[in-house]
Amino acid sequence: MIWCRFQAGETARYGVVEGDQVSEVDGSPFGDYTPTGRRYDLASVRLLVPVIPSNFYCAGINYRDHVIRMAALRGAEPVFPTQADIGYRANNALIAHGEPIVIPRDASEEVQYEGELVAVFGRQARNVSKEEALDYVFGWTIGNDVSERVWQRNDRTFWRSKNTDTFKPMGPWIVTDPQLDGMRTRVRIDGRLVEDFETNNMIFSAATFIHEVTKYNTIYPGDVMWLGTDGVPENIKHGDTVSIEITGIGTLINPVVREA
Amino acid sequence: MIWCRFQAGETARYGVVEGDQVSEVDGSPFGDYTPTGRRYDLASVRLLVPVIPSNFYCAGINYRDHVIRMAALRGAEPVFPTQADIGYRANNALIAHGEPIVIPRDASEEVQYEGELVAVFGRQARNVSKEEALDYVFGWTIGNDVSERVWQRNDRTFWRSKNTDTFKPMGPWIVTDPQLDGMRTRVRIDGRLVEDFETNNMIFSAATFIHEVTKYNTIYPGDVMWLGTDGVPENIKHGDTVSIEITGIGTLINPVVREA
Repeated sequence: MIWCRFQAGETARYGVVEGDQVSEVDGSPFGDYTPTGRRYDLASVRLLVPVIPSNFYCAGINYRDHVIRMAALRGAEPVFPTQADIGYRANNALIAHGEPIVIPRDASEEVQYEGELVAVFGRQARNVSKEEALDYVFGWTIGNDVSERVWQRNDRTFWRSKNTDTFKPMGPWIVTDPQLDGMRTRVRIDGRLVEDFETNNMIFSAATFIHEVTKYNTIYPGDVMWLGTDGVPENIKHGDTVSIEITGIGTLINPVVREA
Repeated sequence: MIWCRFQAGETARYGVVEGDQVSEVDGSPFGDYTPTGRRYDLASVRLLVPVIPSNFYCAGINYRDHVIRMAALRGAEPVFPTQADIGYRANNALIAHGEPIVIPRDASEEVQYEGELVAVFGRQARNVSKEEALDYVFGWTIGNDVSERVWQRNDRTFWRSKNTDTFKPMGPWIVTDPQLDGMRTRVRIDGRLVEDFETNNMIFSAATFIHEVTKYNTIYPGDVMWLGTDGVPENIKHGDTVSIEITGIGTLINPVVREA
């Protein structure tokens, strides 16, 4: 099942994607909902960020090859995380499929994509076992953890490097039952393949993160957890279009512009 | 003017505190609202977290004496922040005035309060000058940035040390027009004064943080910014009651329990 959030007149609505149509509902899949009976052509609706989370978790470092190759670029030894310490991102930075990533005027050239699998939670979770962890996931979407590397090296926190407005594209929708095994993440710039990795080849699995986080933190319906990226991202620049495909979910596409 | 959020039957409502009464409104001060005409005794209502933010900013290190004395405790040189890098906290950890801070079973004894002034935003803000910054603040409340220091030293992020459920008491309400100059923050454990500092003696003022943050991030109505603490906090333990008074705002009181 594919759930999207879209602009219907003045309001944001949820809908179920069925082929090239969207069936609108009243309410949300994170609470109660009822079909309104209205249908739209998928091609004609403006998709919105599929959910605005109350808590926006992000794994950060979660693929061995990413750690090794990013460390080599800095001339440093790779340091692998020894425990599943989750981090955070911020809602102000979220944009939908199709919306532009806006690079600030004073950003360096080192602005880079990071294609990430995103777990979207459907049920309240606390003290959840690894075995049951995925039962609390409502569905999966795609995130682009856009990062400005100079700020990332110099700021005391990631507030600006990772959370500048428009730096967190998420979408295009939520798929409730994709197959995680064998899933691949493919990043393209203007159609050129720049990254292709096994999505579920993580240092700590989604289930491990959920288990560890819920020892201390209650996860709420609509919360999201971004699960990290692999490889060594390239820079993106004004005029590029970045697409992140995750097999079984879809493709998140965003143009890039730099502030004049 | 004093705004509170409280439990009215099944729903959360906003109200205006007038003496020992609360005048209920329909809606919220962050959007439209209309008085319902219903009034309650302040002493009889259950206060809720005054706002659930979409973005939860926290200054972290923002007082010179805190930096000096915390560094001395670690046998390290003090390192002062050179730029106003804002950090984040997480909504799952928020609790209201009166609700218990719950120390997890496996936490160390080094669980500590941090009394903080909190700016609550009322208007959307982007690219705001220092001079105009405070015009975007709707009001001010009090936060207790409860921290587990062993986790803080060892976790790669602050997710657990700072964002364990119940570690972010905020309230009791929002005061729209307190006097920041001369304001004092006083922390008491079971009535014993353990901290007393000049609230507005910050390394970076609220106006500076708002100016810097809004160069890159849009601040939305209902977002909050916690502004750091001074001094060297003591440990808190099961059975303690922590109160944080900020003159002109009120007193945030929370009992402490440790999971059995």
